[in-house]
Amino acid sequence: MTDTPPSFDPGDRNSYRAWTAIPIRFGDQDVVGHVNNVAIAGYFENARCMHLIPALKHSEPKLTTVLARIVIDYRAELHFPGSVDVGIRVTARGNKSFVITGAIFDGDACCATSEATMVFFDPRTRRSAVPPPDAWQRLSNLL
Amino acid sequence: MTDTPPSFDPGDRNSYRAWTAIPIRFGDQDVVGHVNNVAIAGYFENARCMHLIPALKHSEPKLTTVLARIVIDYRAELHFPGSVDVGIRVTARGNKSFVITGAIFDGDACCATSEATMVFFDPRTRRSAVPPPDAWQRLSNLL
Amino acid sequence: MTDTPPSFDPGDRNSYRAWTAIPIRFGDQDVVGHVNNVAIAGYFENARCMHLIPALKHSEPKLTTVLARIVIDYRAELHFPGSVDVGIRVTARGNKSFVITGAIFDGDACCATSEATMVFFDPRTRRSAVPPPDAWQRLSNLL
Amino acid sequence: MTDTPPSFDPGDRNSYRAWTAIPIRFGDQDVVGHVNNVAIAGYFENARCMHLIPALKHSEPKLTTVLARIVIDYRAELHFPGSVDVGIRVTARGNKSFVITGAIFDGDACCATSEATMVFFDPRTRRSAVPPPDAWQRLSNLL
Repeated sequence: MTDTPPSFDPGDRNSYRAWTAIPIRFGDQDVVGHVNNVAIAGYFENARCMHLIPALKHSEPKLTTVLARIVIDYRAELHFPGSVDVGIRVTARGNKSFVITGAIFDGDACCATSEATMVFFDPRTRRSAVPPPDAWQRLSNLL
Repeated sequence: MTDTPPSFDPGDRNSYRAWTAIPIRFGDQDVVGHVNNVAIAGYFENARCMHLIPALKHSEPKLTTVLARIVIDYRAELHFPGSVDVGIRVTARGNKSFVITGAIFDGDACCATSEATMVFFDPRTRRSAVPPPDAWQRLSNLL
Repeated sequence: MTDTPPSFDPGDRNSYRAWTAIPIRFGDQDVVGHVNNVAIAGYFENARCMHLIPALKHSEPKLTTVLARIVIDYRAELHFPGSVDVGIRVTARGNKSFVITGAIFDGDACCATSEATMVFFDPRTRRSAVPPPDAWQRLSNLL
Repeated sequence: MTDTPPSFDPGDRNSYRAWTAIPIRFGDQDVVGHVNNVAIAGYFENARCMHLIPALKHSEPKLTTVLARIVIDYRAELHFPGSVDVGIRVTARGNKSFVITGAIFDGDACCATSEATMVFFDPRTRRSAVPPPDAWQRLSNLL
């Protein structure tokens, strides 16, 4: 992997490149009375897909990405009703994989951060794949 | 039950009183390649809770509502990414229960409708309950 | 539609033909402290798919089913941890559609019932379709 | 933290102390055609809760646990229908927190592993808490 930004602060809004607004749903809460940790994993997934899927849609050969590893740090509780902003940025690039760092903000408060290791994936072979040369150009707004 | 509107068209945006915008999430899709029927049930739940919970929050005695019956008609497929508007309205009122009719719109296209029979519920006794006299006033913006 | 059983009691275990055991998951609960109504819609979906998908897997032409309408009656609360049995049966057959009636049992107590109107669906055209002649034979264990 | 087992192999069934069988549900799949990464996070949550909640139910003072950090490594795809076994074990213990390592097995194949950092949590103050002296005894079957 390369490209890790030198002084990356995962809790700072300015660290991120692309954003997704996610209104909290009633069903995101659990019996403990806050937004569930698995729902938060879904917020990060949704933010990644909102930007990765359109960017890679017209790639040739057709490829997608799958999640190989996720690390999530839960910093503060979230509650219904409300809305969060999820910021993402590609913070490392490898040969067949890359890392998307993300953070969930409730206003300026960072409530959770994540590091997702994504692997380029060929849906025909169901195996990892080296991306086409223009893949990083397609993802340039996330770098 | 009383109060059913005389000429209610469930597929018309003008039939509804209160609205919730719901961005479609990646995880709402199923393996068939469209927004899953269970996710759509969750959209209706979320729209009801967005309006019922704040309205009843300060009721005395404290009460909530539970779902006794749901009918959902699926009219058209929905796809990620996108966003829908969910309209709701109270279309019948009984002694301890009421009906919330809802519809999901993708622009002006009605993609699903629902009728939810809600029962006033006392969280201490976990039984149905007659609502306090001001309950309908609290819900007046949904009538 | 035809074939509705003459004296069908939806709350009786003996009314059903095929069964799926579903352990309740922590995440099926909601903030009210019971299994959520949307999770219960998912239990019924799962029970239908457990039997419909293998039965129709080798049909020619290839077809699947989609849900056109669901009615769920919630009779009693369910709680984590625990396990339920979901029984299903085809209770009506039409030209391109059929009804699967289902019920969720906690022991002998019926906690929810459902009527799902399923439509045969051609995944290539994404439209409803008349099923091949052997479709009902493939589904015979649900009749 | 202390107590990390000296030669712990997260991909070996013998590394785990307590088990939960989880049948894969139709709704656990995503549009890519396999069990979704968020659903797998839910499998791990469910396995932890199946053992932690009963064990701590009668603790005095009343306390629960919340998730502070999760790391999941996805090793192999899972598909509906099917069933997995989730094994867990406490692999590190701190003052107010502990680590539960988990793994999902499809037969003997390890499909995902996780490390969950759990914090003892007082539901009245909604803050972390030092557990009562008998907490580890209550969790002894997970050590």
